[in-house]
This record gives sequence, structure tokens and C-alpha cells, in this order.
Amino acid sequence: MTITLTTDFGYADPFVGILKGVILGIHAEARIVDLTHGIPAQNILAGALALWSSVHYFPLETIHVVVVDPGVGGDRRPILLQIDSNYFIGPDNGVLSLVLEDRQPTRIVHLSNDAYHLQPKSRTFHGRDVFAPVAAHLSRGTPPERFGDSIHELVRLPWPTPDRTENVISGEILYIDGFGNLFTNVRGRDLTGFADKEIVVRLGRMEVRGLSLNYSEGQSGNFIAVINSWGLLEIAVYRNNAATLSDTSIGDRVGIVLPA
Amino acid sequence: MTITLTTDFGYADPFVGILKGVILGIHAEARIVDLTHGIPAQNILAGALALWSSVHYFPLETIHVVVVDPGVGGDRRPILLQIDSNYFIGPDNGVLSLVLEDRQPTRIVHLSNDAYHLQPKSRTFHGRDVFAPVAAHLSRGTPPERFGDSIHELVRLPWPTPDRTENVISGEILYIDGFGNLFTNVRGRDLTGFADKEIVVRLGRMEVRGLSLNYSEGQSGNFIAVINSWGLLEIAVYRNNAATLSDTSIGDRVGIVLPA
Amino acid sequence: MTITLTTDFGYADPFVGILKGVILGIHAEARIVDLTHGIPAQNILAGALALWSSVHYFPLETIHVVVVDPGVGGDRRPILLQIDSNYFIGPDNGVLSLVLEDRQPTRIVHLSNDAYHLQPKSRTFHGRDVFAPVAAHLSRGTPPERFGDSIHELVRLPWPTPDRTENVISGEILYIDGFGNLFTNVRGRDLTGFADKEIVVRLGRMEVRGLSLNYSEGQSGNFIAVINSWGLLEIAVYRNNAATLSDTSIGDRVGIVLPA
Repeated sequence: MTITLTTDFGYADPFVGILKGVILGIHAEARIVDLTHGIPAQNILAGALALWSSVHYFPLETIHVVVVDPGVGGDRRPILLQIDSNYFIGPDNGVLSLVLEDRQPTRIVHLSNDAYHLQPKSRTFHGRDVFAPVAAHLSRGTPPERFGDSIHELVRLPWPTPDRTENVISGEILYIDGFGNLFTNVRGRDLTGFADKEIVVRLGRMEVRGLSLNYSEGQSGNFIAVINSWGLLEIAVYRNNAATLSDTSIGDRVGIVLPA
Repeated sequence: MTITLTTDFGYADPFVGILKGVILGIHAEARIVDLTHGIPAQNILAGALALWSSVHYFPLETIHVVVVDPGVGGDRRPILLQIDSNYFIGPDNGVLSLVLEDRQPTRIVHLSNDAYHLQPKSRTFHGRDVFAPVAAHLSRGTPPERFGDSIHELVRLPWPTPDRTENVISGEILYIDGFGNLFTNVRGRDLTGFADKEIVVRLGRMEVRGLSLNYSEGQSGNFIAVINSWGLLEIAVYRNNAATLSDTSIGDRVGIVLPA
Repeated sequence: MTITLTTDFGYADPFVGILKGVILGIHAEARIVDLTHGIPAQNILAGALALWSSVHYFPLETIHVVVVDPGVGGDRRPILLQIDSNYFIGPDNGVLSLVLEDRQPTRIVHLSNDAYHLQPKSRTFHGRDVFAPVAAHLSRGTPPERFGDSIHELVRLPWPTPDRTENVISGEILYIDGFGNLFTNVRGRDLTGFADKEIVVRLGRMEVRGLSLNYSEGQSGNFIAVINSWGLLEIAVYRNNAATLSDTSIGDRVGIVLPA
């Protein structure tokens, strides 16, 4: 079973390497894959979106560990979420919840059994002391119920569904990637049935008329709108950084005017 | 067969992790190695140089995937280049071409066979939907000719050969590494036969007299010139950032005066 | 045997990928783990701390390669340090020395045997030409004594022990992590036996009264002090960057007033 790691640890410190050491110390044959460690510090939504956008591309029987954990050592519970044959391990702060879209949990376990944690257990690094060792034991075949008590619910982030009137969708910028592309919370499927060329996208004072099929249609240097690889409406500029050029931040409002 | 990944995706987003998920979903035993994901966005030459400088150090029968792909979804072809028993997969925009220096392609395949791509195929992320799955299938043993039609040529970047008169080489800054070392397009072999201590290197108003053997010869704090690990003439400052100190950018002109 | 890599190469260049290519070319089955490549350029102490904080979490029989090597190609020796069944490979500039705290070297080898180095050997990249190939050969089973002559001492960094009078400890900021948390050189064990709530920590004009158990106790937005996951006294701000907020740099002085 592959173990993926997603954190807000960044790349300057040895913290990610330490997680891998712990895993290999328990299960020397574990296969470990980095999803990303560039989640902005303590940004639970960004971590949840990274996981949501990726899980579908991994094989079944993968263990996804997510450590975006501002409440470490406090009240929030460490949990394991099972959905069919996939496993998700992390803090119960919502970071694991977006993968439940359209799906039901098969099992949720509160990681209350200290026997599977490193000892002594720190109050500030449960990635190392709780989540990594539990993932390693799970990958070796320890049944999930051993890690603690079953629970019935987990903290859920609301999916930020856009508002919609008859011909206007009011959404927002949900994510900005490293290229500066602006991911909205409007889905491609919200726009099916409308003529691509007649859809109008508004962001601040800017207006984009029509959807493009790919980035290179924007060779004019103008802002374009595409349905991107996550199935979301995206605003981009060919070979340029749309976020910088438009001075846009996460949460900024976007309006989509649908043709009549 | 090892699969290497080189991209301009950066480290903030889960895009690299998604490529790995796709590969492992097709070939669970694939060995994946990151070359770098820090290629500047859409910088085809930087991607080509990263590959050129690295391939020689990998074992034969390695599959190198390079995704620096500003024209994704447009006219540029997705290709597989075979040179002897090494394979290179990426867009046909020149990023694969520098490894052909002094070598002939054994085979070039246009990746036109949709049967080996993820479906539905996005227009904006062929790394995920075309290059990663083709690499995974190749690593499992699918013969290269299955992936599409053979073609006879690929887009080639010209190697930026410096101009040379009898005793002057006119080159340029080709690459600046993370330490701020300035890599020129002048090769060490261009300077063989000349007395190291009498070669003069000019960059802007600065003049470096003589080649050093290693960085620590520059403990004076002065700029030094060395033949670096890529076999290129490099301008550096011991324990300091030559690019910042000299305010140098890629493309800036360099002159080398050879002793008579 | 797992090989870990710790460098100051950063993530923009293919240098780390090249190390991995060299290792896999010598030992195709090597398991390679990145500890971090974000050590600040030429910062030997930061590299030594990364290793010191991590080694304990890796299984025995791990090979740790550390390349923070400003003196590459000059007088400093390339070495292999063995401590029990763990191996450390890198330059003899102190970067390997902090792991020797409370331990004795089992063996130190000067990597003088060129037969295990890449040829021709560059003067500027011993990570590629010396350390990676030696690690790969060692992981395949080559006995350590083959790599060169045994030596009796290595360059040691002094552990920066704080000064202590009867009720005041005078320390400093030793490390600042990517979250902006301020790691001091004062250890948790230096504070045992004193009432947590009565310890006072001073940094510049700021005063923190009492130790917290975890970050979320700082929900007030105030600076807090905790014993962190490295066993060090740390100054932090809940969901915020203590380094930026307090304008603190490595080396800044910290005072701890112990209760009477």
C-alpha cells in the first residue's frame, strides 16, 4: 500500500524527512509518495483541496496522510477515515472532509490507542508521533479498528458552492496555483448546455467573453477562461501570471453571466 | 525502469503528486525519481538544460518525463524520443532536444494513440493525462511503437554556441543556479590548450583573470572563474551569490580573452 | 539500507536529481529518501541541526549523505563517519558532527580511494562525484574500510550550550523553522524541576510568562513558549509567524528567568 504525504511543512526544514524516517522504521518496505508539502501554513482548505483533486488519480488501497494541523496537541481529534479501500489519516479539522463529496465514510476511527504512537509523544508534532506511525502500521496490515474507537462523524468543511440565479452564477476564487492561474469554485458541469462562446466571466473590472479550449488560445495576451484539469472554471493568461496581472486574491468574487 | 520527472510545476501545488498517482495506478512497482520541479514557469530552455546536464548520470533504460508545456492542448505534438535504450517523453517544443547533442534519435513517436491516455483527456494537463500514463505503460513493457505513429523529426532548440574569433570568445550567461553561480555557454573544452592563469573573463565591467580550480580559491571574496560540474565556464563568488552581487541576468554577454 | 540526502542545493536545479541518478546507476535497488534540500546555502550549522534532529527517527543501518560543502575541491576532507550501524557521509567541515553528541565514533574513514569516485572528478561537485557513489557502493555492501584510510578525528562544531547562573539561562535563537517558530538552544531538560507556569522567557523587549503545553494554548494571539518536538524551548505564535512578528534572527539573545 502506497502512503502519500501532504503537509504545510514546506521544504526548508527536515520535518518531512522525519516523517519518512518514522514510517521506514516501522515498515521498511513502505512506498512513500509526496503529494505536496507546499500547502500554505495552517491553511486547512488548501490542504483539503489538494487531497480532493488528487485522490481520484491514485490506486485503491492507498493511505493518504495529511498534516495541516494548527490545533495539534489541543482538543481536535487525530482520526483515520476509510472510504471503501482508501484510507485518510490526519487531524479532525476538516482537512480530510472534501474527499467525502458524493461518498459515505466506510469507517472513522479516533486514533486514541497510544500503543501505535511514538513515545514520548510531543504536543507539537503529531505528524511524527501519531499520523506517520499509524500510517506505517496500517500499511503493514494492522487492521484499522486497532488504532482506536470508532466514531460516527468528522468535522466537515462546507464545499463553497456558488450562488445561482437564472442566468448569473456568483462564485469566488477558490485556489491560485503556482502559475498564477485563478481557480474558481464554479464547475464545468454548472456550465454544460450553454454555448461556450457566449458565456461571460467577470472578475473585478475585467470581463472575459467565451470559454477557451486551452491556454494557447490566449496567445493574444488577454485573460482567458477555461475549464481546467480539476473540472473548475479557471481564469488564466497564456505564459503569464493571471493572479499578479489582475491583483487577485483567494476569496475575490467572480460572476458568470450565462447566455439566455 | 526508473521514471524521472522534470517539470515547471513548482512545489506549492499537488500536480507532481498527481503525476505519481497516475503512474502508480498503471504500474504499482514503478520507481519514480524527481529530477526537479523548479524549472521556471514555461522556460523551455531551462527544462532542456536540466535534462541535458543530468541524463548522463542515470542508468540506461531510464524513462525521462519532462513537462514544460506552455502549448498544452494546442498544436504542439506530444512525443516519445528514444536514444539507444533511453526514453524521453514530453511535448515537442524543444525541451527534449538538447540531449540529442552528438547523438541520433533511435526513434521518435507521436503519442497519438488515445488508448494509452487518461480519459476524458483534459486540454490543460497532458502531464497527467498523456505523459505520465505513457511513461507508466512503457515502464511496464509496452513497446514504444504502440503509443502512436513514428515521425522523423522533432523541434530542436539550437545549442547557443558562442562566437569565436582568433583570441576572443563571445558568449553569454546560459543558466544561473540556486547559489547564484553564473553558468556561461562557453565550454571547458573550448579553453583547453590555453594557460589557465592567463585567460581573462569579462562580464559587464568586471574582469576575472585566470581560472580557479575550485570555489575555495575565491576566499578573497573576489569573483572567480571555474570550469564547473557541467563542463561550462562559470563565474562564482566563494560563499556568496555572484548573480546578486553582479546584478547579472540570463542572456547577459560574457567575453573571454585567450592568451596569445 | 536506506540512503538519506540532506543538501543546500534547493529545489530549482537538477542537482539533487543528479545525485539520485548516480546512486541508481551504481545500485539500482537503492532506497533514497530526501531529508531536506532547503538548508540555507553554505550553512553548515543548519545542515548539522537538520541531521541531528532526524537521525534518531530513522532505522538502524541507514546511510545519511549530507552535502553542505562550501570548501568543495579544497583542503577539507571527504569522510565517512560510522556510529554503531549508522553511516554518515559528507565533507569534514563539522556538518556531520552534531550527531556525535553523547556518542563515540565507531569509525571515521577519509574517502581517499578514487576507485569509488566518478571519473573524471570535478572540483566543484563532490556530492555527485564522491559522496553519492560512495553511499551507493556502501548500500550495496562494500565494506567501509575500502573507501580510504581510517582517521581518528573529525571537525566538530561546538554545541552552542547556553550560559547559566543560579536562576537565569542566557541562550540564543538557534534555528527558525518554515512556520517562523523560534527554536532556542535551551533544552527542555534544562528546565525540569521548575514550575512551568513561573518560568519567564525574554526575547528583546518581549516577555513570555509560563510554558504552554501546545500551540493552541496561544489562541490569544500572544507569543507563547513551548518545549518543542526537538526537545528545545521554542517561542511561537498560534497560527502566525513569530519570527516576522518579532523581527527575530538566528543568533538573537534569549533570557530565561527560573523561579526561585
